Amino acid sequence: MTAREIILKKRDGQSLTESEISFFIQSYLRGEIADYQMSALLMAIYFQGMGFEETVTFTRIMRDSGEVVDFSHLPGSKVDKHSTGGVGDKVSLILAPLVAAAGVKVPMISGRGLGHTGGTLDKLESIPGFKTRLPLSRFKKQVEAIGTCLIGQTEEICPADRRIYAMRDATATVQSIPLICGSILSKKLAEGINALVLDVKVGNGAIFEEAGTAEELAAHLIRTATAFNLNTVALLTDMSQPLGVAAGNWVEVCEAIDVLQGRGPADTRQVTLALGAIMLRLAGKTKDYRSGMERLRVLLNNGVAWKKFLEIVQAQEGDVSFLENPAKYAVPKHRLEIKAESAGYLTAINAREIGRLSMLLGAGRQTVDDAIDYTAGMLIHKKVGDRVQNQEPLLTLQNSGQPPDQNFVQTVQRCFAIGSQPVTPPKLLHKLLDAHGVHAVAEFA
Amino acid sequence: MTAREIILKKRDGQSLTESEISFFIQSYLRGEIADYQMSALLMAIYFQGMGFEETVTFTRIMRDSGEVVDFSHLPGSKVDKHSTGGVGDKVSLILAPLVAAAGVKVPMISGRGLGHTGGTLDKLESIPGFKTRLPLSRFKKQVEAIGTCLIGQTEEICPADRRIYAMRDATATVQSIPLICGSILSKKLAEGINALVLDVKVGNGAIFEEAGTAEELAAHLIRTATAFNLNTVALLTDMSQPLGVAAGNWVEVCEAIDVLQGRGPADTRQVTLALGAIMLRLAGKTKDYRSGMERLRVLLNNGVAWKKFLEIVQAQEGDVSFLENPAKYAVPKHRLEIKAESAGYLTAINAREIGRLSMLLGAGRQTVDDAIDYTAGMLIHKKVGDRVQNQEPLLTLQNSGQPPDQNFVQTVQRCFAIGSQPVTPPKLLHKLLDAHGVHAVAEFA
Repeated sequence: MTAREIILKKRDGQSLTESEISFFIQSYLRGEIADYQMSALLMAIYFQGMGFEETVTFTRIMRDSGEVVDFSHLPGSKVDKHSTGGVGDKVSLILAPLVAAAGVKVPMISGRGLGHTGGTLDKLESIPGFKTRLPLSRFKKQVEAIGTCLIGQTEEICPADRRIYAMRDATATVQSIPLICGSILSKKLAEGINALVLDVKVGNGAIFEEAGTAEELAAHLIRTATAFNLNTVALLTDMSQPLGVAAGNWVEVCEAIDVLQGRGPADTRQVTLALGAIMLRLAGKTKDYRSGMERLRVLLNNGVAWKKFLEIVQAQEGDVSFLENPAKYAVPKHRLEIKAESAGYLTAINAREIGRLSMLLGAGRQTVDDAIDYTAGMLIHKKVGDRVQNQEPLLTLQNSGQPPDQNFVQTVQRCFAIGSQPVTPPKLLHKLLDAHGVHAVAEFA
Repeated sequence: MTAREIILKKRDGQSLTESEISFFIQSYLRGEIADYQMSALLMAIYFQGMGFEETVTFTRIMRDSGEVVDFSHLPGSKVDKHSTGGVGDKVSLILAPLVAAAGVKVPMISGRGLGHTGGTLDKLESIPGFKTRLPLSRFKKQVEAIGTCLIGQTEEICPADRRIYAMRDATATVQSIPLICGSILSKKLAEGINALVLDVKVGNGAIFEEAGTAEELAAHLIRTATAFNLNTVALLTDMSQPLGVAAGNWVEVCEAIDVLQGRGPADTRQVTLALGAIMLRLAGKTKDYRSGMERLRVLLNNGVAWKKFLEIVQAQEGDVSFLENPAKYAVPKHRLEIKAESAGYLTAINAREIGRLSMLLGAGRQTVDDAIDYTAGMLIHKKVGDRVQNQEPLLTLQNSGQPPDQNFVQTVQRCFAIGSQPVTPPKLLHKLLDAHGVHAVAEFA
């Protein structure tokens, strides 16, 4: 068995056996198979796909490449949420304390920004002092003690995925359903959870723009997770425009604070409540989504979720004084308003481009070694469907590095389409999928 | 422009522009694009192909990544031969001195063994002292002085191709027509030749098994070469069984000596004479192939080609005493006859497997760093169509490393199919292609 023979087999559309996948991944981790052979295999998988059994095997071998956390001694369900990634998606920051406040254990291992999408870890690290690199032993203790912990992938968890993931964006092999399944589920299975909710984004800022492909991804994720007895529900949510009003790092933390204090934008709040209600039901804490949402609304409004957030930040060495008084935070050096150049209705926002431009502004990394400007980001003042006056502010750019030039400003401006006819805002929640099929989302209204 | 964007574009089936191809290759050579991004692009090209203009651009940028030899001061045509690779293909060793003896300049830059196919350089280096790594200045002087020089790709020639080629076998991206065109023609165009003959192999030991795909490759090579005003003719020849009677390194040199001394196997001799006649005609030395072959036959029979070979070996520091007296050469430590286990007719030989097994025996490299056992190889005693007695020797294995085990012997045995009905031997010369189209090969009979 050689790496070449395995790549050739996949290139020619055949299924790989368990021993082939295992050989390839183990040899890769030992340095006997080169990065350039792994990336060739990834591209071959992009074109030829993987069958169901193959995806399950791939996921299991990725999971078993590192440590698998065991929370079986802790009573009750351990439930996590994963989002396929979008622009302005700060839901994890709100959801972890909120659901933990409702008595569910939420062990959460998150990722960094990738391409045009932000990352939960980068957002958390914008809180001065906050540590996302904790050893697994401390992760386990914190979940036990306060119900949740938000960390990054450690050295011990899925080293195979960590190395493969690092190459996928740079090799244009992100949009592959079996590779996405393997990457997401291997990490989630290693967390020691019993149930999982997936926020599968749909629209131009999502990993897959088309609703059909996003639904296909959701179905594959559920089917694969089910093979591991991981009870999984997917909610398809809108990513045809950024979620909420902020895209960046500290600006998103501020929006999360707003929601945790019972305020905040309606869309961020609604997606969070819907995902949270699914988690409560998966944990057996509620019979139906409606009552779950109601219970979570109370926890947002009575300050209990907010207190849980402060507890998490303190436990992970973050300075809560910045959360209690955001005005203490460093002020961005540059601030620039982008204004409408005509009157009418906002008909579309290019979310993918907003994400990419935020990254260029300093909120994300172009290469792995780039430093992040935590003050960098965008505040979005208008959403699709809104009426717009001429010269009304659409968006505020802010950062502390190089000030954005005229060309950049024009590129941001082109992200907003203004038309003369009113348009209906996009539906926020599309569909719900579980092991039994596809369901409507009326319950979350 | 980023590497990722370019890979994505090709992955999605779009044509790359000149500036994109140039950016990718230049950045790669400067170390700004990683091997794993190059291999992902190669796999994307494998699946999506390249258009004609794109292939021409790719070839030109590869050629211009290094030095381009100029032989314009030398009178007469400079003509080279390239084979797409096979098992037992020692034609270059005979052809270069033979055609040079007929007064044509033959600047020949060859490759090493790759996968199951042998390499001219490895065969030449089995001659004690023979140097294939010569600076371009010495290459040019030798072509001027004695009409031909056989070297390997130097640091100066097509560095882009050298680095890409080194990855292609290990990433299963060899069988791509545009990548093959770019790789072959960039090197040949850098040699400073006016005309080129291609030996495009067809059959299970060839890069493409199917005659249709091999013909497609030949047509693409000719069309691309024509865009550079390189007069090119392709001969499609049989590789459904090894060429001649020897596969290895020193054993192939010995077969070449036989042919150069007017003896040798009929098939090796015929392919060499046909390719040589095409080279003479391309160089304007003969009006038709028949008279060209006749002239070359004389040069083989009267010892002139043989003397030219000794002259080359001497000029490249090889010890001619081993050629004049091959019995002086190291005797292989192990020799083993593989015998027929039934009587009948030899209906097929698995040439690809014979090549792979020769490599495993020590005649080739499994990894770039492996040392070659020059005594290793196979002597093939029966060809397709031959009548075979039970227990009659089919093949002799020889090497000086680990003696072949029983399992290996059985694998070799399975390369020979013996049937009860007589079969017609495969046609050796299939077709001739040039810029005007496809032609029959009756003239070479």
